[in-house]
Amino acid sequence: MKIHTWNTLTEQQQTQLLQRPELQSQEDLRAKTAEIIAEVRARGDTALKDYTVQFDHVQLDDLTVSPQAFAVADDVSEDARAAMQLAIRQIEAVHQAQMPQELSVEATPGVKCVRQTRPIARVGLYVPGGSAPLISTLMMLAVPAKIAGCPLRVLCTPPNKDGQIDAHILAAAQLCGIDKIFKIGGAQAVAAMAYGTATIPKVDKIFGPGNAWVTQAKILVAQDPQGASYDLPAGPSEVLVIADETANAEFVALDLLSQAEHDVAAQVILLTTSMLLGQQICGTIERQLAKLPRRKIIEQSLAHSRLLVVDDIATAIAISNRYAPEHLIMQVAEAEQHMAAIHYAGTVFLGSMAAEVLGDYVTGSNHVLPTYGFARVSGGLALTDFLKFISFQSMTAEGLQAIGPAAEKLAEIEGLHAHQQAVSVRLKDLKKGEK
Amino acid sequence: MKIHTWNTLTEQQQTQLLQRPELQSQEDLRAKTAEIIAEVRARGDTALKDYTVQFDHVQLDDLTVSPQAFAVADDVSEDARAAMQLAIRQIEAVHQAQMPQELSVEATPGVKCVRQTRPIARVGLYVPGGSAPLISTLMMLAVPAKIAGCPLRVLCTPPNKDGQIDAHILAAAQLCGIDKIFKIGGAQAVAAMAYGTATIPKVDKIFGPGNAWVTQAKILVAQDPQGASYDLPAGPSEVLVIADETANAEFVALDLLSQAEHDVAAQVILLTTSMLLGQQICGTIERQLAKLPRRKIIEQSLAHSRLLVVDDIATAIAISNRYAPEHLIMQVAEAEQHMAAIHYAGTVFLGSMAAEVLGDYVTGSNHVLPTYGFARVSGGLALTDFLKFISFQSMTAEGLQAIGPAAEKLAEIEGLHAHQQAVSVRLKDLKKGEK
Repeated sequence: MKIHTWNTLTEQQQTQLLQRPELQSQEDLRAKTAEIIAEVRARGDTALKDYTVQFDHVQLDDLTVSPQAFAVADDVSEDARAAMQLAIRQIEAVHQAQMPQELSVEATPGVKCVRQTRPIARVGLYVPGGSAPLISTLMMLAVPAKIAGCPLRVLCTPPNKDGQIDAHILAAAQLCGIDKIFKIGGAQAVAAMAYGTATIPKVDKIFGPGNAWVTQAKILVAQDPQGASYDLPAGPSEVLVIADETANAEFVALDLLSQAEHDVAAQVILLTTSMLLGQQICGTIERQLAKLPRRKIIEQSLAHSRLLVVDDIATAIAISNRYAPEHLIMQVAEAEQHMAAIHYAGTVFLGSMAAEVLGDYVTGSNHVLPTYGFARVSGGLALTDFLKFISFQSMTAEGLQAIGPAAEKLAEIEGLHAHQQAVSVRLKDLKKGEK
Repeated sequence: MKIHTWNTLTEQQQTQLLQRPELQSQEDLRAKTAEIIAEVRARGDTALKDYTVQFDHVQLDDLTVSPQAFAVADDVSEDARAAMQLAIRQIEAVHQAQMPQELSVEATPGVKCVRQTRPIARVGLYVPGGSAPLISTLMMLAVPAKIAGCPLRVLCTPPNKDGQIDAHILAAAQLCGIDKIFKIGGAQAVAAMAYGTATIPKVDKIFGPGNAWVTQAKILVAQDPQGASYDLPAGPSEVLVIADETANAEFVALDLLSQAEHDVAAQVILLTTSMLLGQQICGTIERQLAKLPRRKIIEQSLAHSRLLVVDDIATAIAISNRYAPEHLIMQVAEAEQHMAAIHYAGTVFLGSMAAEVLGDYVTGSNHVLPTYGFARVSGGLALTDFLKFISFQSMTAEGLQAIGPAAEKLAEIEGLHAHQQAVSVRLKDLKKGEK
């Protein structure tokens, strides 16, 4: 692994090193995904079963996880169940604190603006398949949906080669109060939830990460007012670590490796003030790598990693703000002192004990986070993503008299005469009443 | 205007009456908008000037509103200026109250999750052109952007046939602290703000309503990670009025007319428990219509309006929740008592004095609202749309010992060994320290 020194690079080299890997061509993906969506809309459950044969290589008679199938959840070990329960309690605590209070503003007497929240009525949760059951993702979606009070919560996840759903997923779903689970994955699952089929209920908003197909399908169904909205665009996972000479090389190396093992497209960046630490980290990565089962994935991912030596922590934070990483790890002395300088990152881990992995699973902070620079404009998944605001406006005669004339004037400037009249008739009516 | 009685209709007729007007074909629009965006990216300011000739019929030497051009803002009458100042004070009060508090949760001792907010660094505000200056839209965008503390705030609005921007727009911009104004409209303005040109600075997120081109351009640039995000999808404006026998027919008629005068595609729906009131409202609309300058627009819009007699207010609210209107007007006795039953609407006006027009201009509630059923999943524009959340996670040794083992277990279930190791090495290090 090559270590670059930031202040010896040209501006062009700097920009290039902070570039993210190219994503799959949108146009090609878009056409294929649109076709899957059209098929699901036209042929419903039959199309879903056909795609499950094609992509998941299994023939399903029933897309639904039956109440009997849930029985295997009982096989999950006590240890595993306890770990899930701890995670759920933490996620509950963090998200419950995000519940918005009712706001009421009366800036002018008699002119009252109240803001309340309502749960989104029907939500669809997507948990990707893969080599292992992503129970953490399930909990990160299902717990806030439950706290928000969304009345209909539907879960889609692809079946394994035996046409089953992993017992851990079923156990986690039960612990999170989800009882509607369907064995479908990919763009077809998104299409089914956006439009509904005979088996799958239609939802208003779809949550959860996925591959490029799932993401593209979420974008497409969101453009159709008859479709469904979505949470946030998902891209390859990424971490940026800022480490000073006080950092533990082994801790940093494993934080970088944790990120790299997610996906060949995952991106890891290290910014350090110490060339020596940088070299130690490289050494530790190479030693650890030999022992890790996902070595092949990690090697591909590390091929586009970046190791940079910077002059000071302020420079490192400026680079991080520019990159806007999904995860930022601050392995520096007195990490809390730098919080105010950090502007753009999904989530930030402060200090040597705060392994990113703890945030993936058990701190309670949501691990569905903005990738690919999207942290410039958005935070991670939050309780409010499962809620909607509604504003109420009420007015007394006193209020109308105070602000009505300004509304008449503004309507006049905008050339909207019915607008003006709607206020004028009310003001006149009040005058009449006074006589 | 035809009055239907809800409970005499078949389910199919009911569904059909609540259907929104069809939108322009997406595919055609998409290709043309993509071409405009590509041209602006390739040829920058030159393309912007060419499109301004083509669409706004004016040749501009400079796209920027010069400091000297701002002088005409002084010509705005004292009345107009006072009305704007009142509106701005109200918008400030309502949006300032939306400033999120810092959250700090420590559900397990030593495991701390803190949520802070940051302003989005660069925001682009779009104010559409048209027959009159939309100063209210400008204030609804610029005031929250200022309160949020967004450091760069750029405004684009199309020039009039003399290549100028209306003095009221310039005055409103000054009052809202906007000094970067560019004379461009349409999809080309969106493209310019998303990617930047020699003259127009690149922004991170674009706000403001617009026609189908503007909306399509916002959707397209948001799909490109190099582009910019946007606020919420804009469709034709719409109002649903629920009125009982206590309602004033003239007030309701003018509320419906106000909505209808926006746009030929605007949709107005009346649900009333009183056939007599419905007939009075029809009569008033016909009388008023003759006097209104925007009569032609209103007539086209009213052609797809709906007047329905319902059995009771509960039925009316159920219909409204199903339709999810942008604006809901409750012209009923004791309107406040129905708040809890109202689930899906952008904003709700309660009682006879609360003309929707007051919300358009001066209550302070934001008038950029979810249209076309989007109120099922989203509220109106809010201060948080100009902010982003960032979460900080910190951990003591005690915290790590309490939750670390659960993280190890969950990583094991998910088959992520580097994840497991990242926690294990820290736990081991703590044990070593204890000896």
